[in-house]
Order: sequence, then structure tokens, then C-alpha cells
Amino acid sequence: MNYREESLRKHAEWRGKIETKVRVPVDSRDNLSLAYTPGVAEPCLAISGDVEKSFTLTRRWNTVPVITDGTAVLGLGDIGPEAGMPVMEGKCALFKEFGGVDAVPICIRSKDTDEIVRTIELVAGSFGGINLEDISAPRCFEIERRLKEDLDIPVFHDDQHGTAVVTYAALINALKITGRKIEDLKVVINGAGSAGLAIAKFLLRCGALDVTVCDRAGIICEDDEKLTAPKAEVAKVTNRSHLKGGLADAMRGADLFIGVSAPKCVTPDMVKSMQKDPILFTCANPVPEILPDEAKAAGAYIVGTGSSEYPNQINNVLCFPGLFRGALDVRASDINFEMLVAAAKGIASGAGEKLSRDFLLPHAYDKEVHRKVAAAVSEAAIASGVARTDLRA
Amino acid sequence: MNYREESLRKHAEWRGKIETKVRVPVDSRDNLSLAYTPGVAEPCLAISGDVEKSFTLTRRWNTVPVITDGTAVLGLGDIGPEAGMPVMEGKCALFKEFGGVDAVPICIRSKDTDEIVRTIELVAGSFGGINLEDISAPRCFEIERRLKEDLDIPVFHDDQHGTAVVTYAALINALKITGRKIEDLKVVINGAGSAGLAIAKFLLRCGALDVTVCDRAGIICEDDEKLTAPKAEVAKVTNRSHLKGGLADAMRGADLFIGVSAPKCVTPDMVKSMQKDPILFTCANPVPEILPDEAKAAGAYIVGTGSSEYPNQINNVLCFPGLFRGALDVRASDINFEMLVAAAKGIASGAGEKLSRDFLLPHAYDKEVHRKVAAAVSEAAIASGVARTDLRA
Repeated sequence: MNYREESLRKHAEWRGKIETKVRVPVDSRDNLSLAYTPGVAEPCLAISGDVEKSFTLTRRWNTVPVITDGTAVLGLGDIGPEAGMPVMEGKCALFKEFGGVDAVPICIRSKDTDEIVRTIELVAGSFGGINLEDISAPRCFEIERRLKEDLDIPVFHDDQHGTAVVTYAALINALKITGRKIEDLKVVINGAGSAGLAIAKFLLRCGALDVTVCDRAGIICEDDEKLTAPKAEVAKVTNRSHLKGGLADAMRGADLFIGVSAPKCVTPDMVKSMQKDPILFTCANPVPEILPDEAKAAGAYIVGTGSSEYPNQINNVLCFPGLFRGALDVRASDINFEMLVAAAKGIASGAGEKLSRDFLLPHAYDKEVHRKVAAAVSEAAIASGVARTDLRA
Repeated sequence: MNYREESLRKHAEWRGKIETKVRVPVDSRDNLSLAYTPGVAEPCLAISGDVEKSFTLTRRWNTVPVITDGTAVLGLGDIGPEAGMPVMEGKCALFKEFGGVDAVPICIRSKDTDEIVRTIELVAGSFGGINLEDISAPRCFEIERRLKEDLDIPVFHDDQHGTAVVTYAALINALKITGRKIEDLKVVINGAGSAGLAIAKFLLRCGALDVTVCDRAGIICEDDEKLTAPKAEVAKVTNRSHLKGGLADAMRGADLFIGVSAPKCVTPDMVKSMQKDPILFTCANPVPEILPDEAKAAGAYIVGTGSSEYPNQINNVLCFPGLFRGALDVRASDINFEMLVAAAKGIASGAGEKLSRDFLLPHAYDKEVHRKVAAAVSEAAIASGVARTDLRA
């Protein structure tokens, strides 16, 4: 199937992938008086006296906006805020289908960091959490950091942390299959945008000791004074041998390659230069850094991609619905590292008995995995002290 | 029933009056590829090339935020943004139930006019129209005016225009019953907040010639230099005999009294001082300016109130769902005077054969009236040149 052509036809037919459903009766005088005036005055006054009650007397506890400025949509780049809406709307459908989360697509007509932060802060009282989406680096880092500081609801930039979580989930299972340990791996990450830098930081916190990151100019090294602030921060804790050169130099002797970069930038020779039985997660979309067949022919033992066209799709959809479900269920004030690790372990466990080189992760449409993720995340939120109220029945 | 106590209990049980419904299948690899990646790239690119396509390839065409800053919620006043949410959420339920409109409750944590305007402008690309709600005067006037100037989607402040439309609808039918004409009426409006001033301006545009507005200090007169700008604007076109004094002075000899003010501020003597068989719309909530029995005993011929406890409820719910349905159906770029008049006439016609002194307007939960309003508004939008695309099937 030509997905893109068919998708355009379907979108014109659907005219929207989500809609509102009314949960209460409003079909009589009495019902209107309870759901609306005059009865509604009482829950209003209750919240006025204690804003925390907005989580138990309205839908706020279950509502998350999926917010973009349209600057880094899919692999398409800066296509404008309204043009990002089909992705945001699709994500909202997935939030509901797999996480039971009521998500609202919102695009912001500004690229200014201050203005985006302020806009989100001003509407945050309407929501139980914030999902940032497809905002370009380096602005996405500051926007997320400031919102996390200022708001007492979870803030999550999926392109960074969703990608890191699902990559780590794939790694957990790849290590299990190959009997390796994360601290023994030589890791190379190609791509130093929001996803690549987030994966590097996350794997280091999860125990990786030897991580090297490359961008389009080659290996990122601490002594390069031209690095942007987010890259410089990562350069301080990666590439400890201060190696210089290109991607081919970085990959020599590596156990794990993670690509969040560009199609077909990895050659069979680069794969051959890695350790025996290497692991490759080639997540460039829609075409991976090297095609799985080529990578395997060159010696790759496990190959995962970002695409549903090959086995082992490393797909953010495995993470965000269950992650937010788990956070919202316990009125978490944050999504912290412990919750992200719990999500990754929940996803990894979802492969179950079927786990193999060609079945590294469960399918995104397997509803059971999202329940596992949610339960693990709620527990981690409680254990790490960011859960405020257990709203689970 | 004690609506307020029972409503609090119900809100705690409901934990939200609306939720998201997924309209498309996402339960298989193929379906995910159409609704989400990689297929979704194509509608994204189509909108990037022509932003107007966001109205045909996403839910934007049918989506309206119900936005408040929590400063004038019901009769409760400035109770805070989150505390306004039960009303906004209830309104969203009514939008869907009676208009098929997908509405999103949003509260803004600011009372600053510039900041509210800017926030709404920045998120406006997500929506097909904007419904402002429970924002206090005089800020609401400037906020609405600036948004109407800057945006190419309908902007509507319900507390002003919804109230004016439904009041005019009641008046159309009261005139029909009593055989009077609007240009012959002596009209007194008590209350000079957003609703009172909007009703005054609207009735003048509809043909009324003799309108006097009172606020708490008494009759509003052009030569009072202390009036706020919005009151001063209305003072220039009302009270043309420059009468001074209190509400009792204004009501002497009046045919029509419209109250959007405070409970029990009208006495039987004031009603007795009006013309024979006067019309009283006493819309203070929850208790009217004078109780209907008292008003009738003092000679009132037709009495309407804002409450569902008495006959002739003059209820904004009769207006906004059908009004937005009609505007969205033809991708209107504005909600103009012609559309508001069409809505009022549509509402008035909804009383049908039952029309009488005690059945002035249809019930809000009568779905037929909302269809009539929508059809009339779409036609008015087309005739007045603000309809961009007929989206009706």
C-alpha cells in the first residue's frame, strides 16, 4: 500500500481523528441543572477554595495537550504549526486508544522560547500533564526545562524521552538475548538532535560507561568550542578518549549503534568494523541508516528500526500512552528518571515468551503492554515520592 | 432537589463531563500507518502548502475552545481560572450534545488583557472558532474586539452576544403575542456589565429607539464624566432625554424591563409604574430581579427569567450550540450581526404552535431548535459574505 497517498485520501474523508464524547446526561431540566447551572456553582466554589480539587471535580486529571510549534514535524522539519496538526491529532487518538488519556491537539503560532513557555504556563491549569511534540532543538531543551521547573504537573518532551525510553527498552531485551551488560558496551549514537542527546544522557544514567555521539560534522568532542550548549553538555560526559573523526571512526569496535539521523549514512563496511555480533538500532524515518538486510549481511546480530516495515520496530507509541496513564493515575507532579526507567522495563517485559532476535519488542497495538507500562510507572511515581493522590479505583 | 449539593456529589462521581472519542481505527500496523506515521506526512505537507486545508484534513473545522480567565463565573465573580472549569466543561458538553461541536475547556491563568489576547492568538490555529466565557467587563470588550480584528475565525463572547441573542428571541415572541413593535417600545435595561451593554447595543441595531440603561448608581447618562469607556459608548446612544435618577425613575412608563443585574432589586410598585401590560425579562441568577408571581400580581403581562424554575427561561444554551454549528458548517470567518439576528429568529421560531405568554421560547433540550438556529446562521453567513466553504455534506 502507498501509505502516504492513501493517508491523504483517508484524512480528507475522516475530517478529524478524534471527537468529543459527552459523559453525562443533559437531556432534561433536572440534568441540565446538575451538569450546568445552577448546580455547577457548587463544584466551582469547591475548586476556588482548593485548586487541587480541579483534579477530582473536572476532567483535568485525565487531560493532556499534545503541543507543537510545527518546527520539527516527523522528518519534515519546520512545516508550520497548523501543518503539524495531523500528527498531533493522530497522537491524541493513540493516547486515548492505548492509554485512556484524553488528549487535546494544540499548535502554537510562535517559535519564540519565552512565548511558547508563557503560553503553556498560562493554559496549564486546564490539564493534568503536558506533552511537548516535534519542537526543534535546541529550543526544546530550554522549553522543557523551564516548564518542568515552573509547573506541578508532569511535562514530557516525547521526541527526547519517549525515544530514549523505547530505545532503552529495546536495549534491555537485546542485552538479555546476547548475554551482554550495559556497562561493557561501546555505544555509538549518530544524530545529536533532541533524540540523540536524550538517548546519550539516558543510557549513561542507566549504567553505560562508553558512549560516543556523532552529528553531521562527525564525532562530538569536549574540546570543540563551536558546540551548541546542549551538545557541549553531552560532550563533557561522552567520548572520554577524546576521539576525533567521522562516523566510520566512531563505529570501529563498537558493540551498539543507535541511529536517529539520516537515511543510508551507514555502510556495510562500517558494520563490519564493529565488534562481533553487533546490535544496530537504525531509527531514521522513513528509511533507516542502513537497510536491515544489508546490516545483517555485514554481520549485525540484532537490527531494530523506526519503521513498521521491518521486524523490531522501536516505536514511541509503546511509551507515551502507558507512561502518562501511570503518571495521571497517581496525580504525579513530575515525570522523573525512575518513572522513565520503569516504563522502559515495562515495555521490555511486554515481549514476553516471544522474545527473540526478530521479536525484540511487543507491537504498539498490543494493549497489554500499555497496561504493564502504566502500572510500573505508577509504582515508580509512588516510590520516588512524586505521586500526590492515588486516583485508581 | 437541592441542585448544588447534588451537583457537587455528581461532579465527584463523574470526574469529568466530556472525554475524547477515537474516530478512526488504530488497531493494526496498516491502520497505524495511515492515521499516524508514515502516512500522516502527506496531509501534513498538504497543510504546509495551504493552511486552509487544516479545515478539511483535521478536526479543526469543528473544534472550539471555551476559554475563561475565571473572573466572572456565573454570579460568583472572580473565583480563579481552575474554578471556572466545571462551567467550561459543562458548556463543552452542551456544545456537543446540541450542536455537534467538539469543544475544549481552557482556563487562562492571567487577568492581563494583552496576555489573554496573545495566548488565544497563539493557539488559534488549532481551532475553527473561539468562544470566550465568563471574562469580566470591561476587559472582555477589548479582548473580543482585538481577537475579532486579528483572527480569521469566528470569535464570540457568549456573556455579551449569547445573552443579547436569546433576549431578542424572547422579545420577538413577546412582541408577536402583544401585537407591539420594537420601535414603539420604551426599554429599560438594569445592569451595565457585559450582558446589559451588549443587549442595549443589539436592540438598538434591531430597531429599538428608546433604550435606557441603569447600573448600580442609577440611570446612565451621557454627561456623566466618570463612566468607563464601554458605558460611555452606550450612553451616547441611549437615554436620549438625558434623564437622571434611579431605577424607579427609569422604569416609569416603560414597556419592557430587562434585568441582568441583582436579585430582588425591582419592587411591585416599580412594575405598577410601567405601561399597561408590561413585559419583564428578569434574568438575574439564581434569583430574579422580582419573582414572577409578584411581577404578575403587579400587572406584568409577560415574565421571563434566567432560571429553569419558572416558565419562559431565557437561556443562552438556546443560542451558542446552533450558532457555532451554523458558523462552522460554512467555515465562517466571523460571527457578524446578521448571523446573530438569524440565530434569534431561529430560536423564536422554535416555540412554534405552542407560543403563549407562558411558553415564550422552546426548551434548551429540544434538539430541533438548535438545528433551526444552525441552518439560519449558515444562510446568514453565506448571504453576508463571511462564509468561505460550505462544509455541509
